Amino acid sequence: MNKKLLLKDAGEEGLIRRLRMFFPPCPRIPMGIGDDTAVLPYTRQAYLLFTTDASVDGIDFRLAKIGPEAIGRKVLAQNLSDIAAMGGIPLYGVMTLGVPPSFPVDFVEEFYAGVKKLSRRFNMKIVGGDFSRSKVFFASCALIGAVEKKYAVFRKNARTGDFIFVTGTLGGSILGRHFCFAPRIREARFLVRKFRPHAMIDVSDGLTRDLGHLLDESGKSAVLYADRIPVSEAAKVLARKTGKKPLEHALGDGEDFELLFTVSPGDGKKLMALKKVAGTAVHFIGRVRKGKGLFIQSSEKSLERKRIPCKGFSHF
Amino acid sequence: MNKKLLLKDAGEEGLIRRLRMFFPPCPRIPMGIGDDTAVLPYTRQAYLLFTTDASVDGIDFRLAKIGPEAIGRKVLAQNLSDIAAMGGIPLYGVMTLGVPPSFPVDFVEEFYAGVKKLSRRFNMKIVGGDFSRSKVFFASCALIGAVEKKYAVFRKNARTGDFIFVTGTLGGSILGRHFCFAPRIREARFLVRKFRPHAMIDVSDGLTRDLGHLLDESGKSAVLYADRIPVSEAAKVLARKTGKKPLEHALGDGEDFELLFTVSPGDGKKLMALKKVAGTAVHFIGRVRKGKGLFIQSSEKSLERKRIPCKGFSHF
Repeated sequence: MNKKLLLKDAGEEGLIRRLRMFFPPCPRIPMGIGDDTAVLPYTRQAYLLFTTDASVDGIDFRLAKIGPEAIGRKVLAQNLSDIAAMGGIPLYGVMTLGVPPSFPVDFVEEFYAGVKKLSRRFNMKIVGGDFSRSKVFFASCALIGAVEKKYAVFRKNARTGDFIFVTGTLGGSILGRHFCFAPRIREARFLVRKFRPHAMIDVSDGLTRDLGHLLDESGKSAVLYADRIPVSEAAKVLARKTGKKPLEHALGDGEDFELLFTVSPGDGKKLMALKKVAGTAVHFIGRVRKGKGLFIQSSEKSLERKRIPCKGFSHF
Repeated sequence: MNKKLLLKDAGEEGLIRRLRMFFPPCPRIPMGIGDDTAVLPYTRQAYLLFTTDASVDGIDFRLAKIGPEAIGRKVLAQNLSDIAAMGGIPLYGVMTLGVPPSFPVDFVEEFYAGVKKLSRRFNMKIVGGDFSRSKVFFASCALIGAVEKKYAVFRKNARTGDFIFVTGTLGGSILGRHFCFAPRIREARFLVRKFRPHAMIDVSDGLTRDLGHLLDESGKSAVLYADRIPVSEAAKVLARKTGKKPLEHALGDGEDFELLFTVSPGDGKKLMALKKVAGTAVHFIGRVRKGKGLFIQSSEKSLERKRIPCKGFSHF
């Protein structure tokens, strides 16, 4: 019998693979599907960035627990984080809402208040939107940004020997940070101007999963140093509830929205000395290697390494 | 008692009014919220166009009746229609889906097959997307396009005395045309190159409602000539079922996705002689007047006119 493959079994990555098959690369377009944003022809010096991200009540958040302002903020913030991951600046956004008609108008106004505050902070403009009735509340945002060609950072250019860094701390975002995180636009701009990262991605699905994406696209492997992973306070609190180790939360939890990037060993040493970019701590966490797979060892000096799976949070 | 205003009572226009209040015009941006697409700085000669439109199962279509391929096609087509209404050409799109995990993978593939066929026809590229789990299926599309500054057409520049035209025929789209209509990109491009329409909009909410938008933005009134309205065959078929007049369907039905535009009397006469643009019939249907309101008279020669309300289909 011909059993149909269901979406729940294909998962988000299976779906994105299909999307890439349907809409394959094209020579005029520097990057279509397969990075944090699409990278498109723009001016002689700059690329246009184009990205979209949606959130659905009951899946990505629970309206009953979180007010509309926090949700509006978050939907914009996660799109801004994708622009940051390319080294770009955000320019314009459109925001589409599906809302139950029984909701009060105040709800939409509070949602937009959250969007507006964050958009001002990053000097970008909401220039359009659409409304549809929907039994389930959802919000879908699309952003346009730009990046100088010389500063654009993709996932695919990590080099053997690169130092791997991450901004901020990781894990336990679910306890609150995933609603109030600051998209790392300024940090990314500082990095591309001063250090030219070889590859970059934002940590939305969890450190190991997103590092896995970066390594896949680059055709490399990596080793992480357990003692260098910046475990957040929230990861420690959460670990007490879940019975997992705080490190496991730092490695696997989604929605940190930190920048994960690789630089040359020379730049890596300078960054380690600098410690912060645009006011945010950066942490050296591992090295890029030849081959395939992701490994972890207790410290840089350790001789024993363990293969770890690139699993993490799936939004689907 | 302070009774809360609900979304169903505010309606789509009330929501868009609020969106415009929250994200007001800005001097750097030729057009934010308030036209078919946002119009943004791009090159010295051209503007960038940016638009979004969503569709939800059970509201905008019924999945059980219509296959995913037709829906994919339609979601893209209605966004293309917005680009057409500015006189522009489409360049890039992103497509976000909310899908129940119990759906087969085939569903998403058929949806994309519909998107792909239409995108090829208009020489544009899908460069990104996002997936979210959702109890209710929805699709949200955002498009980028471009238009030469000298060719850009807004809703707001209709002039007193202008001839009003519409492409194709109107009404009864619900009987099938709303799933297979051709976005009027080529027709719009022909018009902006050869005739420079003063104002243009696509008929998505019904002729009178969309003409109402165009007149509101232009600060004008208009008179329509009933004997000149191109009533579709579908409107006649539908009228037999609903007991309304076919003309009522042509004036009020949504989702025709034809171009509604105004030109100078001189260009109007030339267009009437030409009869077709890019293979599609164009019909002279009325004149732009000073003041406010929308009127209809049985023919151009008639001395009696009747005020008609700008009602039509509300997507909310």
